[in-house]
Amino acid sequence: MESQSDQKKEATIIDGKVIAQTIRSEIASEVRHLSDKYGKVPGLAVVIVGTRKDSQSYVSMKRKACAEVGIKSFDVDLPEQVPEAELISKVHELNADPDVHASKFTGSSTSVSYLLVFEVIIQWVSFMQGCLELLSRSGISIKGKKAVVVGRSNIVGLPISLLLLKADATVTVVHSHTHDPESIIREADIIIAAAGQAMMIKGSWIKPGAAIIDVGTNAVDDPSKKAGYRLVGDVDFKEACKVAGWITPVPGGVGPMTVAMLLKNTLEGAKRAIKQ
Amino acid sequence: MESQSDQKKEATIIDGKVIAQTIRSEIASEVRHLSDKYGKVPGLAVVIVGTRKDSQSYVSMKRKACAEVGIKSFDVDLPEQVPEAELISKVHELNADPDVHASKFTGSSTSVSYLLVFEVIIQWVSFMQGCLELLSRSGISIKGKKAVVVGRSNIVGLPISLLLLKADATVTVVHSHTHDPESIIREADIIIAAAGQAMMIKGSWIKPGAAIIDVGTNAVDDPSKKAGYRLVGDVDFKEACKVAGWITPVPGGVGPMTVAMLLKNTLEGAKRAIKQ
Repeated sequence: MESQSDQKKEATIIDGKVIAQTIRSEIASEVRHLSDKYGKVPGLAVVIVGTRKDSQSYVSMKRKACAEVGIKSFDVDLPEQVPEAELISKVHELNADPDVHASKFTGSSTSVSYLLVFEVIIQWVSFMQGCLELLSRSGISIKGKKAVVVGRSNIVGLPISLLLLKADATVTVVHSHTHDPESIIREADIIIAAAGQAMMIKGSWIKPGAAIIDVGTNAVDDPSKKAGYRLVGDVDFKEACKVAGWITPVPGGVGPMTVAMLLKNTLEGAKRAIKQ
Repeated sequence: MESQSDQKKEATIIDGKVIAQTIRSEIASEVRHLSDKYGKVPGLAVVIVGTRKDSQSYVSMKRKACAEVGIKSFDVDLPEQVPEAELISKVHELNADPDVHASKFTGSSTSVSYLLVFEVIIQWVSFMQGCLELLSRSGISIKGKKAVVVGRSNIVGLPISLLLLKADATVTVVHSHTHDPESIIREADIIIAAAGQAMMIKGSWIKPGAAIIDVGTNAVDDPSKKAGYRLVGDVDFKEACKVAGWITPVPGGVGPMTVAMLLKNTLEGAKRAIKQ
């Protein structure tokens, strides 16, 4: 991995938007194939309760993404005050629909909180898969590599360290109580930055040629922006570019992958169901 | 931690039997206190199905351990061919008994396989707690230390690495695909050996003064023994003794702690129930 830095090249930017677009094109082609061969397409149920603006825009992004690749989205809009029983009955209806292959809910104990947990898990699995997909799509193998995960949160640091371990990396997790984190990070072939600290990982902490996945999304004051802030990762991107072999930008790295991986999971679910 | 090796002392043996005995004495004293103050003692239900010799001796060990510390054991012996419904009804009966504080089973979906899973989890939690208790009882703090877990099994390597991480160690997991594991292990203040490979960790792999918990239990041929084999750990004990600061023997290290921690969990359950 060190050949890049020997040549004093800048790091290759791992462009999440471009990779996500590639994945979507592949999905579109597979969906066309399923449609031609079996006369069926994958279906994703999208249920939205209420009119919160952020939920609405997130869901409309999902629906657009589905349409783009030929996945049929089953849109259900319910008012904020929908009775829980009605919501549950709607979900059971979707669940029973053989054309829906993702966001399906099961279990007699279904309740709204259970649904929310389920939805969060689906998002979260897609997000984690996105991180690893960015590495593999950039031609970076994980097996036998030294990976250092910075941060040990239950929702990012811990699960990604387990995924890396399953992919045969030698994994170290560093955190706020780690002595001399720099020296440990400096040994990593792969750095996953998930500390939630703006630009904390400096260029001098990085092994020449290392691959960096920056999961951080931190808002820092920036009066030059209309919003008064800009988003930065956990890595000092400018410095890191001079040392690393590969790096994801923030934004535009891990973020765009989540929806692409959700679509991919929907496709895989449909393939299993259709080919049965 | 290095002062010990500077003085060329042998490693301190972390004696699981002695520590387990200390814990049992403490439990006995707490049980007497509960009995004096509230007129109640902790209760542990022990259900055994069939007459397998290893189950029988394991259970009789548990019952003896309960008696020794004053915990009341509720013994239920059922024949190998007990109908599932009868076993489940028995368990519900124990579950409803306010004097039983551990090995309680809940849930309307109770089935035999569920019971077995539950029993395995209880054993497993006690085992994991035992490993960490051996460190704390030996005066070894975990916070901020470099811990290396050798082995990444779902039942030992992974959970213990998560426990160490929660205890603020900087944790690295090494395994069969790790390049140059020696150099990584050599940096560890705390080594958890859980690879299942007889005596694979050599003296030269160990940082002077390190603490070693050897979870391995491997049978190696030994014609001098009546059984034709003896048990050894994942660490070359003789070599390690000359370098390490602390080390658990095999057998007599982690093993004896499991029952002691099970008793302790029963006591804690009883304290919560009684003091409510």
